[in-house]
Amino acid sequence: MSAEIICVGTEMLLGDILNSNAQFLAKQLAQLGIPHHYQTVVGDNPERLKQVIEIATSRAQILIFTGGLGPTPDDLTCETIADFFGVPLVERAEIIEDMAQKFAQRGRVMSPSNRKQALIPQGAEILPNPTGTAPGIIWQPRPNVTIFTFPGVPSEMYRMWEETAVPYLKGQGWGQEIIYSRSLRFWGIGESALAEKVAPYFNLPNPTVAPYAGTGEVRLRISAKAASEAAAEDLIAPIEKQIKEIAGLDYYGIDNDTLASVAGKLLQASGETLSVAESCTGGGLGQMLTDISGSSEYFWGGVISYDNSVKIGLLGVNPDDLAKFGAVSATVAEQMALGVKTRLSTTWGLGVTGIAGPTGGTDTKPVGLVYIGLAGPKDEVASFEYRFGTTRNRSYIRYVSACAALDVLRRKLLTRQ
Amino acid sequence: MSAEIICVGTEMLLGDILNSNAQFLAKQLAQLGIPHHYQTVVGDNPERLKQVIEIATSRAQILIFTGGLGPTPDDLTCETIADFFGVPLVERAEIIEDMAQKFAQRGRVMSPSNRKQALIPQGAEILPNPTGTAPGIIWQPRPNVTIFTFPGVPSEMYRMWEETAVPYLKGQGWGQEIIYSRSLRFWGIGESALAEKVAPYFNLPNPTVAPYAGTGEVRLRISAKAASEAAAEDLIAPIEKQIKEIAGLDYYGIDNDTLASVAGKLLQASGETLSVAESCTGGGLGQMLTDISGSSEYFWGGVISYDNSVKIGLLGVNPDDLAKFGAVSATVAEQMALGVKTRLSTTWGLGVTGIAGPTGGTDTKPVGLVYIGLAGPKDEVASFEYRFGTTRNRSYIRYVSACAALDVLRRKLLTRQ
Repeated sequence: MSAEIICVGTEMLLGDILNSNAQFLAKQLAQLGIPHHYQTVVGDNPERLKQVIEIATSRAQILIFTGGLGPTPDDLTCETIADFFGVPLVERAEIIEDMAQKFAQRGRVMSPSNRKQALIPQGAEILPNPTGTAPGIIWQPRPNVTIFTFPGVPSEMYRMWEETAVPYLKGQGWGQEIIYSRSLRFWGIGESALAEKVAPYFNLPNPTVAPYAGTGEVRLRISAKAASEAAAEDLIAPIEKQIKEIAGLDYYGIDNDTLASVAGKLLQASGETLSVAESCTGGGLGQMLTDISGSSEYFWGGVISYDNSVKIGLLGVNPDDLAKFGAVSATVAEQMALGVKTRLSTTWGLGVTGIAGPTGGTDTKPVGLVYIGLAGPKDEVASFEYRFGTTRNRSYIRYVSACAALDVLRRKLLTRQ
Repeated sequence: MSAEIICVGTEMLLGDILNSNAQFLAKQLAQLGIPHHYQTVVGDNPERLKQVIEIATSRAQILIFTGGLGPTPDDLTCETIADFFGVPLVERAEIIEDMAQKFAQRGRVMSPSNRKQALIPQGAEILPNPTGTAPGIIWQPRPNVTIFTFPGVPSEMYRMWEETAVPYLKGQGWGQEIIYSRSLRFWGIGESALAEKVAPYFNLPNPTVAPYAGTGEVRLRISAKAASEAAAEDLIAPIEKQIKEIAGLDYYGIDNDTLASVAGKLLQASGETLSVAESCTGGGLGQMLTDISGSSEYFWGGVISYDNSVKIGLLGVNPDDLAKFGAVSATVAEQMALGVKTRLSTTWGLGVTGIAGPTGGTDTKPVGLVYIGLAGPKDEVASFEYRFGTTRNRSYIRYVSACAALDVLRRKLLTRQ
């Protein structure tokens, strides 16, 4: 038994919209433990849609349609499904009534074209739409086929799914075994290097472990099939613990954790504060830190020292060192870190200076060369050199530079004596 | 002749990621005039992937795969395709060499598992990956089937598509009648208000004009069908000119222009400089400005004054005014702007202070209340109040606050005497 998601709409074939409905439904199916192997997108074309239904019924038993339920002539999902199964459409008075009420409420007049939305296949149940006008259906046209239809508007679809489809599916016995996942996030190690370290885990049957690459980072998804979240948790926990031990400091957090949130929690725990001095990231590091509501507890602010005059004037970087070593150097990164820490009176200071490109690189200082400076409680300073590669674009280099700075701080906070 | 997009990856079936690759490719196919009727998502499962290839080859002639080219054992796209067509994989020395070079550049060691990425079907051409390690292929395994494979990482895929796949497809005769679009971008006017102003244009046959909403802004897409870009340009130009005249200052740029790039060009033209003082945006305004390579010519830097101590210490904001009016006030926004302008010796200074939420709002100062201060060449200051709404989330409010600051500067630079 498995489900297939079928999204209907020429706008997706033109690339006008992102198919977020498929992602929502995929997550929901996983949570209910309903296997799901295929997603199909097809335009508003009855012949092609029928072919898609033919294929889907040969490989899945639950068919979930989104889109094509509207009042305009190109909205054909419901009638095409009925036609495929050789069943007539019937007008349902309760739908007409519900629509009339909604139009009245909004002070609008129902147009004749809306009547089309009241036509559903004979024998189908109505899947009510509490917010919009187009209802969906739940229908078993054959013993081994269950059909759900939803409008394409995400907010309407989400509510209909949660209020009607989920209870229905649970009534059919689904949701007793769920798939529950956790992503472990790693910084400072490549996908293949991490994969080799944890290779034996990739063969586990339950939970399963699989790697995937994010921007500058790697994740491992641990997915368990179990009767409840708690039972899945019991399966995941020991594997999670072992992988964390193997990965050591390269592991930094789970799921929605970010390097900024993790470093922030460590600062919060120690009651310490942070300021930043940014050159190549130009404010991106501060933005990452302040993305987190409540970050004002430990993040006091910083200086965007894009021009050298600001490095000298506001951060106290030594002009002779700037001339001798260049703005992109370990020395300047350290002086920026110490300068901002001192002037803003924080426990820690981070400095970031580098060449984000695409121009400005030289043979000795190529695009992607970045120095992170870290100044600590006793004014001790350290610096770290990164080479993010000459083939990466400006926004990638800026993003991973800010992440690397947070990672430097995170590692320091975890390993200091 | 038509194309099918096939995205491979269990992470999409679990709903872990949004399938933005399909949207990108769909748009690109439309621009080249290549018909495209189906998109399929399938997991990292060779049997199911083979079934998908079977179906796709029966209804399309160009098969575009994304995902499953990585170094780990679950990355099976390339070998499954080869297996389907009964062709062996061969290791290509030039791929090994290219990967070794990239690893060396980044100071990392190539793991043995990366060798897998050098295996491609006999007879296939390499589709080079300038940024990542996994190359794709272009391959005609049968007279009526052309296969493209791309890695799942969007940034890598986009570049490979543009640099290699597009020239290849154009060489095959595609893209002769093209759809060429230009987006006009507007700030400071709502979608319906703009739509009413330009309503008659929505009925044009060629070029067509359609509105769509961006984050905090509205766009109008003017699309022309023509034999060449130049011919499309001739159709678009007069309409573009008329719409710009109707919209006045609310129009700010086209396509990839941003408020930061437009304001930056104006500063560059007048030979003036800018600095910023950021509270609620926490660095986001600086980041927007420095997203642009070459921005160091006019953007000198700024202060992230997240904590009040930084507003007082580094920007010279009056502590009595902070106490009397609060950090989120017109007065403080103006003092921040003047303070940063004076300390960094720039022509212009921008100050941003507001309540990004979700906490911190009050009855008189709700979430979404933002003040922008602008200080000019003669130390004159002005401030602007925005209410971005209590229902918006933190990241939206922070983003539109930074945009609003740039818009204030842009309008000033365009209208000053």
